[in-house]
Amino acid sequence: MKKVDLIGVGMTKFGKHPNETGRDLLAEAMREAIASVDKGIDIKKDVKALCVGYFTPDLFEHQGHIGALSAEWLGVSGIPAFRTESACASSSAALATGYFAVASGIYDIVMVAGVEKMTTLDTPGVTDALSIAADDVFELATGITFPGLFALMAQEYFEKYGGNWEDLQAVTLKNHHNGALNPKAQFQEEILAIAKKTAIKKGVTFKDEMDFLKSKYNPLVAYPLRLFDCSPISDGASVAFLASREISNQFTDKPLHITGVGLGTDTLALSGRSDLTTSKATLNAVAAAYKMAGVTSNDIDIAEVHDCFTINEVILSEDLGFFKKGEGLKAAQEGRTSLSGDKPINTDGGLKSKGHPVGATGIAMVHEIWKQLRGEAGERQIKGNPKIGLTCNVGGSTASSMVFIFERGKK
Amino acid sequence: MKKVDLIGVGMTKFGKHPNETGRDLLAEAMREAIASVDKGIDIKKDVKALCVGYFTPDLFEHQGHIGALSAEWLGVSGIPAFRTESACASSSAALATGYFAVASGIYDIVMVAGVEKMTTLDTPGVTDALSIAADDVFELATGITFPGLFALMAQEYFEKYGGNWEDLQAVTLKNHHNGALNPKAQFQEEILAIAKKTAIKKGVTFKDEMDFLKSKYNPLVAYPLRLFDCSPISDGASVAFLASREISNQFTDKPLHITGVGLGTDTLALSGRSDLTTSKATLNAVAAAYKMAGVTSNDIDIAEVHDCFTINEVILSEDLGFFKKGEGLKAAQEGRTSLSGDKPINTDGGLKSKGHPVGATGIAMVHEIWKQLRGEAGERQIKGNPKIGLTCNVGGSTASSMVFIFERGKK
Repeated sequence: MKKVDLIGVGMTKFGKHPNETGRDLLAEAMREAIASVDKGIDIKKDVKALCVGYFTPDLFEHQGHIGALSAEWLGVSGIPAFRTESACASSSAALATGYFAVASGIYDIVMVAGVEKMTTLDTPGVTDALSIAADDVFELATGITFPGLFALMAQEYFEKYGGNWEDLQAVTLKNHHNGALNPKAQFQEEILAIAKKTAIKKGVTFKDEMDFLKSKYNPLVAYPLRLFDCSPISDGASVAFLASREISNQFTDKPLHITGVGLGTDTLALSGRSDLTTSKATLNAVAAAYKMAGVTSNDIDIAEVHDCFTINEVILSEDLGFFKKGEGLKAAQEGRTSLSGDKPINTDGGLKSKGHPVGATGIAMVHEIWKQLRGEAGERQIKGNPKIGLTCNVGGSTASSMVFIFERGKK
Repeated sequence: MKKVDLIGVGMTKFGKHPNETGRDLLAEAMREAIASVDKGIDIKKDVKALCVGYFTPDLFEHQGHIGALSAEWLGVSGIPAFRTESACASSSAALATGYFAVASGIYDIVMVAGVEKMTTLDTPGVTDALSIAADDVFELATGITFPGLFALMAQEYFEKYGGNWEDLQAVTLKNHHNGALNPKAQFQEEILAIAKKTAIKKGVTFKDEMDFLKSKYNPLVAYPLRLFDCSPISDGASVAFLASREISNQFTDKPLHITGVGLGTDTLALSGRSDLTTSKATLNAVAAAYKMAGVTSNDIDIAEVHDCFTINEVILSEDLGFFKKGEGLKAAQEGRTSLSGDKPINTDGGLKSKGHPVGATGIAMVHEIWKQLRGEAGERQIKGNPKIGLTCNVGGSTASSMVFIFERGKK
């Protein structure tokens, strides 16, 4: 198996992009990815194949056949190209496919990408589009939606391990704090700043940010989850270049080595699971990734963890082995996952604050690991010269989970 | 790069399956694939990953997240699984992904699959669903549909190389002849038999099958293409098992070696192409596949070629190098592509007669190569002890093309 390096990565700002289609967003992300390659890359000459994650272009843009379309739009028409789908982990599936292809030796350089153009639909339309990540026959028939599915996990977590919705706000506050330092984030404001603005606008007073979070301005979505527990509707794209380690030094002296790849699945419907407070798919994925990389959870300096809803960051931080089961909530409250904590999580603001154009999220996580391990994360750069980073990107109610481990290459 | 073998393949009958969902069809195809593995396979123990091609479950079944769902439904929940999409070549993309994964050494056995459940929608609904394989912005805005796109190719082909619609019926007649010998085919009748039945039912007379094909009972769809030039709307699924050659003898003494893999793309919209009588994506794909396999078009004993419309079989038979440009139509008329010809094409009836549940088609092509190279094709078995077979599966108006070459393994 050939070794595989990450040699560049780029992304659009996440948020509303009313004047750009999915393909336009991909092109913007690719331009930034090209610029990130230290010694330059000539895509027409160097890129041998393309794999694009997009959850449901069918419903968001009345468009399929995304591989060939993206190859054309990105200026590399002719090369092998197709799309991968794994709900909100669609671009991690593209990354995995690119990894397999480079590792096999069939292509020495592969472009992998992710995109979702969600704001074409209104909120009920987006809710319906996203719902197809759940089981249409056995789950959607009940009328439940994704906030409801994750609310059930939160209820079971609190029942089993204690804690409550107020405790969970440690995640909300942290991720908005981090997002405020990220120019790519959809929401670049601390919760306190949002509370102040709301107070001015509505002519009300809040004692502090918790007072705001408990107010009607943070309405209940699905008990116990409120609006600010949920990731937003976003447009965005992300692009990365993978190269065989044999040639990666032609492109950069500071590649990231991809040392661990692990994928796992679980039943699509929650009703098939015996425990809603753990993600079996993630347990499978991370075990495979740690084994391949020859590391343990203790070795991970920084992690991007799929916080589609605040409770999920807590549950996954335990399943990834960072904290014992039932202790993730306490760890978040103690600041252990903050920028200055011993296990920083979602330093870019996470899905919560950075935004969640679902097909783009997996490779956007990689973007943050690239920045942090190379010491290029600006105001949100973590200390301690981080060497090993992890991404954990899940699909649906964690029926799919994909984990990648990245290590800083030697100069 | 590890060598990759095909150790088993199965498929459902193609056609209308009103009482089965896509997942049910996959399960049926998998049961047959398991039965095809000579020494048996224990899917729970042996299968390490799953990749499923499905063009648009979003529109046909209001369902996404097909990888995890299929893993669950096929009894292997927990393993790595995701979906690939490349329009009508979606399961060839799954096959390619499985190939990359096994070739890389990360998984030693991968299940690859394809499915499409199309009869959930009425004909206008299916036409709309399939249309997303074309460019929504630059092509669908004109109102054109897929029969129209391929009709343009036929018009240009006749203009450039001569020939006419009547000549093209050699493909229709051949593929219905072959399909009549295939118990998996949607239409198991010769055109002559269909003409006779129509005559009895309608109280009309036809001199022969061409008289029928020119009648109002074979109505014009998009000039010059008529109904019997078009592949039908179908439900169906196909499943194959890939294994590293190092271990394939644990499963069979008669594997097929996958010796060539080639993928290519072209502009999504026809307006981006300078010549509609050739498929650039296929030229790229087949060149890569022949190079990898170390063979030429002369070495191919049998081919499955994407005849979504009759004209496409002719064009692709030239692009694959079987006949010179402009001579494919004559070759079909001379019977060179028939069961007893020197270059048998679509011995299973092709998409035309076998049916075309688009996501299932690529691996269904592999099913026929498996049968023919192993001498198990029954009444339609070609003579001469075929050793090398090829599949060419395209997406949309050939904006994607994927070619695989299979060679009979030694006992």
